[in-house]
Amino acid sequence: MAECGHLAVEMEIICVGNELLIGKVVNTNASWLGKRAISLGIAVKRITVVADDVDEMSAAFCEVLSRKPPFIVITGGLGPTFDDKTLQGLAKALNSPLEVNEDALQMVNEKYNAYAKMRNVPDCKMTPSRIKMATLPRSTLPVINPLGTAPGVKTCVLDTTLFVLPGVPSEMEAIFEESVVPLLRQVTGGVSFYEKSIYADKIMESVLAPLIDIVMHDNANVYIKSHPKQEEGKPHIELHLSTSGKPDEKPQERLNKSASELSTLIKQAGGIVSF
Amino acid sequence: MAECGHLAVEMEIICVGNELLIGKVVNTNASWLGKRAISLGIAVKRITVVADDVDEMSAAFCEVLSRKPPFIVITGGLGPTFDDKTLQGLAKALNSPLEVNEDALQMVNEKYNAYAKMRNVPDCKMTPSRIKMATLPRSTLPVINPLGTAPGVKTCVLDTTLFVLPGVPSEMEAIFEESVVPLLRQVTGGVSFYEKSIYADKIMESVLAPLIDIVMHDNANVYIKSHPKQEEGKPHIELHLSTSGKPDEKPQERLNKSASELSTLIKQAGGIVSF
Repeated sequence: MAECGHLAVEMEIICVGNELLIGKVVNTNASWLGKRAISLGIAVKRITVVADDVDEMSAAFCEVLSRKPPFIVITGGLGPTFDDKTLQGLAKALNSPLEVNEDALQMVNEKYNAYAKMRNVPDCKMTPSRIKMATLPRSTLPVINPLGTAPGVKTCVLDTTLFVLPGVPSEMEAIFEESVVPLLRQVTGGVSFYEKSIYADKIMESVLAPLIDIVMHDNANVYIKSHPKQEEGKPHIELHLSTSGKPDEKPQERLNKSASELSTLIKQAGGIVSF
Repeated sequence: MAECGHLAVEMEIICVGNELLIGKVVNTNASWLGKRAISLGIAVKRITVVADDVDEMSAAFCEVLSRKPPFIVITGGLGPTFDDKTLQGLAKALNSPLEVNEDALQMVNEKYNAYAKMRNVPDCKMTPSRIKMATLPRSTLPVINPLGTAPGVKTCVLDTTLFVLPGVPSEMEAIFEESVVPLLRQVTGGVSFYEKSIYADKIMESVLAPLIDIVMHDNANVYIKSHPKQEEGKPHIELHLSTSGKPDEKPQERLNKSASELSTLIKQAGGIVSF
């Protein structure tokens, strides 16, 4: 039984950027998206991180598309510099030529005009670097970026809806909230994800293991995962209980009942429980 | 030209864990491994995050193996609880049955005996949960875990060397340093990765883009990536310069020369540069 086994709607995340592969940047975009998706009742099935390289990206995009998830969110590589190549990678994966999209061009143009006005300078030239941000695969549409210059991109491939969002976290989050969340809400049918943690001390994870098995066996649809913080001498273990369901299925009660049972078993085995 | 284009030795990272997919845990294991690998002259080509699910893992492991990277590092899912399924996933991917490995069993046994001695309790029973940590795919070998109870695992598949390390960061890092790094050092031939950042203010990324193109064109083997921190009104952009090479190829000089040229161009365009 998988943690998100009840969540029928699935998503894959692809993050583009060498900075993620060389560990210069920690991938908080993926964790933000994972957390936000699960809170909406969407199960993230896989996260893939690829380089700023058209062939690498295109291969990864094709692989993810071949698994046919209902939703794909790609982040990073939409900016004006040469290393922003995500739309080239997408064009190759979709076999759809890149061309200037008039709606996207208007979005970019309006942003730069607003900046120029704000700074009181005559700067509304559409340079090649700016036109680049409005050059999309033919089969895609631009999505308004409320915070930055590069529009997001949306397309559908068979039953998959695919979004490309900028790598700058504030812009990624803003477009996700404004343009992706409303779509996700339509498809989840009111199923949500619920979680609760309890903490066990003075008991080793290997002693806990069979106790977790008992509680999971007795409580269908509750998933319990142990996260050992330290097991050398003084074990401290987080037990993360989760479930999903519609509110009328009383998922919160299921969690509380399981946490209470597990807590009793841990105490009987000589451990200490805290909430 | 890819950032790590000169690094001949490649690695893929696979991180197993629902907690990464639901955003409960930020994937610092992947960024630590990426940073450590590149510092040794190894290019991480892809990071894949999969669920604690045998079929999902096995599929991901097979996909990564099919790309034939010289090194694969898998993290997570080696512990004693039911949700630690990475070795089941690996057994399926390798088509190699799980069996108790006597060397691994001795490693686990010694750890628990040491803990029991430390805590002055009679606790050296090999319970099913403990034997589980010593149950490996037949074609693999255990690797000493200097900090925790679950041994790492190593195997070779054709020309790929594959390691499985625990998900607890301190244990993952300790095994990597002790058992993976010496192997990586043997294969890189003294090529290392070098990096340097400069910061540009009062210039927009779209104005910077053609300047970066000029400097990269003039300086072969130097890769420059811009990281906009904010482009709304007051742009602040990190320019990350990187290269790789043997020390006698003077990679540091290449970086300094490129940084100096880029800095001059930015100032000419009205921007402010800081180091």
